[in-house]
Amino acid sequence: MAATVAQHRPHSKPLHVSDAPPDAASDLAERLDQALDAIARLARYPHPGRHAAWAERLRVNLPELRAFESSNPRADLGYLRPPRVAARSEARAHASPGASAGVPGAASASIAHPAPANPAQAESEGLAHAALTAVALARRRHDLHAFVSLAEDAAIEAAAADVERRRRAGEALPLAGMPVAIKDLMPVAGFVQTNGTDDAAASSAATDDALAVARLRRAGAIVIGTTNLHELAYGITSDNPHFGRVVNPDHPAHTPGGSSGGSAAAVAAGIVRIAVGTDTAGSIRIPAACCGVVGFKPSFDAVPRDGAQALGASLDHIGPIAASVADASLAFAVLAGHVVRTAPPAPLAGLRVGVPRRHFLEPIADDVRLAVEAAIARMRDDGAHVVEVDIAGIESSAALQFVTLCSEATDLHWQRLLEKPGTLGADVRVRLEIGQFLPAIWYTRAQRGRAELDAAFAEAMKDVDVLVTPTLRIAAPRLGASAPVIDGREIPLHTALTSLTMPFNLTGMPALTLPCGLGENGAPIGVQVAARRGDDRRVLDVGARLEELIEPNRRRKP
Amino acid sequence: MAATVAQHRPHSKPLHVSDAPPDAASDLAERLDQALDAIARLARYPHPGRHAAWAERLRVNLPELRAFESSNPRADLGYLRPPRVAARSEARAHASPGASAGVPGAASASIAHPAPANPAQAESEGLAHAALTAVALARRRHDLHAFVSLAEDAAIEAAAADVERRRRAGEALPLAGMPVAIKDLMPVAGFVQTNGTDDAAASSAATDDALAVARLRRAGAIVIGTTNLHELAYGITSDNPHFGRVVNPDHPAHTPGGSSGGSAAAVAAGIVRIAVGTDTAGSIRIPAACCGVVGFKPSFDAVPRDGAQALGASLDHIGPIAASVADASLAFAVLAGHVVRTAPPAPLAGLRVGVPRRHFLEPIADDVRLAVEAAIARMRDDGAHVVEVDIAGIESSAALQFVTLCSEATDLHWQRLLEKPGTLGADVRVRLEIGQFLPAIWYTRAQRGRAELDAAFAEAMKDVDVLVTPTLRIAAPRLGASAPVIDGREIPLHTALTSLTMPFNLTGMPALTLPCGLGENGAPIGVQVAARRGDDRRVLDVGARLEELIEPNRRRKP
Repeated sequence: MAATVAQHRPHSKPLHVSDAPPDAASDLAERLDQALDAIARLARYPHPGRHAAWAERLRVNLPELRAFESSNPRADLGYLRPPRVAARSEARAHASPGASAGVPGAASASIAHPAPANPAQAESEGLAHAALTAVALARRRHDLHAFVSLAEDAAIEAAAADVERRRRAGEALPLAGMPVAIKDLMPVAGFVQTNGTDDAAASSAATDDALAVARLRRAGAIVIGTTNLHELAYGITSDNPHFGRVVNPDHPAHTPGGSSGGSAAAVAAGIVRIAVGTDTAGSIRIPAACCGVVGFKPSFDAVPRDGAQALGASLDHIGPIAASVADASLAFAVLAGHVVRTAPPAPLAGLRVGVPRRHFLEPIADDVRLAVEAAIARMRDDGAHVVEVDIAGIESSAALQFVTLCSEATDLHWQRLLEKPGTLGADVRVRLEIGQFLPAIWYTRAQRGRAELDAAFAEAMKDVDVLVTPTLRIAAPRLGASAPVIDGREIPLHTALTSLTMPFNLTGMPALTLPCGLGENGAPIGVQVAARRGDDRRVLDVGARLEELIEPNRRRKP
Repeated sequence: MAATVAQHRPHSKPLHVSDAPPDAASDLAERLDQALDAIARLARYPHPGRHAAWAERLRVNLPELRAFESSNPRADLGYLRPPRVAARSEARAHASPGASAGVPGAASASIAHPAPANPAQAESEGLAHAALTAVALARRRHDLHAFVSLAEDAAIEAAAADVERRRRAGEALPLAGMPVAIKDLMPVAGFVQTNGTDDAAASSAATDDALAVARLRRAGAIVIGTTNLHELAYGITSDNPHFGRVVNPDHPAHTPGGSSGGSAAAVAAGIVRIAVGTDTAGSIRIPAACCGVVGFKPSFDAVPRDGAQALGASLDHIGPIAASVADASLAFAVLAGHVVRTAPPAPLAGLRVGVPRRHFLEPIADDVRLAVEAAIARMRDDGAHVVEVDIAGIESSAALQFVTLCSEATDLHWQRLLEKPGTLGADVRVRLEIGQFLPAIWYTRAQRGRAELDAAFAEAMKDVDVLVTPTLRIAAPRLGASAPVIDGREIPLHTALTSLTMPFNLTGMPALTLPCGLGENGAPIGVQVAARRGDDRRVLDVGARLEELIEPNRRRKP
């Protein structure tokens, strides 16, 4: 056994093994022995007579398991991306967050370390104007609790001077001077990263940007602040016990959604046109839909996650929340490292649109159904060919999501849970706690289920280019609303808000939400456009046209 | 909740949900409730007072979990390959096992459906000769229990006729007429696939080849039979309760190793020069080392696994067991779909060889140490630059492997375990049973540990091209041997045979074993050459030269 070998070698370095002395009274062997019958009963394996055989066989691996149960390997090393030759070399090209320091301009755009004064400084005041105005508005709207931290004016001016210098040097800066806000779940140089929680471990400002943030700054964007979120991004209300409850700017009696509630509120309040969010079950699209703005969850890993705090490493995505599809499209191109191109939206002639009725339109609130069907009708009028499709096994997605996310999140935050559970909000604490009760064979079974769901989507999409669905089963609900009754049936609120977004986290497909009218309660309704993995541009292009069709008064860009 | 929606829709199709009526006495809610405290204690989470909060929160997800616990999604859909755009499209190019039918010649090479007689038939007798001789030898050596099934002479003649026809048509056939044997863990057209177990479900002959088998046939190889293995490939003795104990041909008092014991024995007995094996913890390299032949585990997914029975889907590899490194190299090129090239082995001048001492040479049997150090000395004399390297955290590999494999294997075979546990051999049954006791957060933690191990190998190999280690800690042990004492310490036999091979399953790195002399007990010793993922050719090229250096009397190829 490797652990046996390790005992030989005092200089061996196990994976961050705890130095705590073993507690004889709670040795793993004893705890396993006490759990075997309850777990076998949980697994429905009806052979209690084999208890002794199990205990004897487990004893063989106890030495290494004793070390393993105290280990806490790093979470930032391509976790849950099994080794694949092609994928691996691609991942290396992205490089680690530290690599942002090697990007011209990225390090000098750091707010913590303003660039030295230089001739360009004075002339950059115009460039700084938008960001200074944005941060001033953000300060005035502190009642929204949209931000965790805001940049100082001096830091913004220094960043603008740097952008100006780079513009003069001939750099292509598609976001020159554009104010942006970043969900406080990833390092942003000059800001303390909180992950929306109260973990004294993080108390000093980051010196490096997450790779996604570095790309925005490289393109000329100016970070005006870090946005509030549901604690650890593990929930959808953005009612944060440490940084306040995010308010839905235009609909303050309604939920802002979450977990990227601060990013959506910052856009809805007109503070920034582009904010970065993350999405593990819908955390970009849900708040965007609730706040009446645009949110885009790209294909899995189309935007590198290097540096960002994980929640569910096989489900996490980084993407933009934006004031329009055009803004989301521009932000995505920069975040994904693509060449930025702009073109006016084209009519949908020839586009093949699939509408999955089962699960996605059943049950659905009447006002949402009407709004989405009206949007689909306009797509048809614009030349799209609309067909109904069915995704086999789609009703299993809630279980697949729950088992996968609950396991991954509890593992990632296990040390925190052991050491400081009382510092967590009540909802996040209990969600993290229940992850310990899921068996590994459920987790692996859920991954098989995801592969099967993936194949079902591929089959359903054989003859269509995009899917169009509602984003939520209801318009943004009022704060404190109980489980809504939809089609005569009471649906848990969490289900009503996540069951249409999470399938695209399970499969890694790109999915966009854009506003699609108001519900009977006066709150926003979202329509969702999704496509095959890798088809991000198509989703954005279709979304841009759909936005025009829904809001015909919006002037078309030249 | 999605499951709630499903109740609405009688036509919805959940993932293979069981039709069995729910047993009220063993409802999931009750079983979970009874398991919570034991599992929290197993996880060392010291808050029994929160039992009610856990039960209440779990109740939210019970509807979907009830359906999920009876589900059994397909296992052949890229399971445990999280969605990645690049990886996915590559996987599609491989196509599914059924695609082999579209390969010219593959279907007609089927033993079950011999090609019709034609003018080439008579002239193919020469081509059939080697395979007919091989199958005759295999029949004579049935005492070895190396094969599960053998081809009929008529089927071999038909296959040879087909190869002859394709040769005349100008096809490139690098294996024209070469007899090969296939581990009985994947479909081979014309053979019943048993997976080395007694599962009445599989009773009719396969009509399609696994993709790897189809590639061998396309290259002109003739399949003479399917080889015996450790039941379900889940063990290393190849003492199969259904198909007999595989015998080590040249060392019948010693273990043949496993799980690909039949493939190694078929090569060692001179029946075939090339056999296909699979390797999840060492199942190609261990029997090859024990039987004194060559075994190569390629980079993860360098050889497509389409169609093969999985054991640990994130650890499984397909590769050749062969009579020489040149044969292994040829077989690998065909299995991987590469262009076949041949060149004489080149001296090792300039090659940078890393020798990891910790874990790999400590503890190690004296005879193995001497043999491997002698091989390394010859590499140095041949021009290689040899340095000692250290792989941080390597001692954790046994735990990572156990947690990963035990979870994946139990999940895959769970239905079999529930329905017919008594039909399994005692060792495989208990190994499958204990998989139910591992928590999901251990499985995900193990995946983080694998990523960390991966980074540790990358760091250790920064300045070297290959690693050289022993394959096993001891020479092939005598049958029934107990735990060996190595460097004054008793090491479990299983550990002595797997702890040096499994790290390369965890990381997906290519690893080759070749014979390196005999131990004090007269049985073979293996030396292992490994490299970075994707560096398969380098491993094979270095191995070919090392084989010459170890056996200087073997004539160098022109």
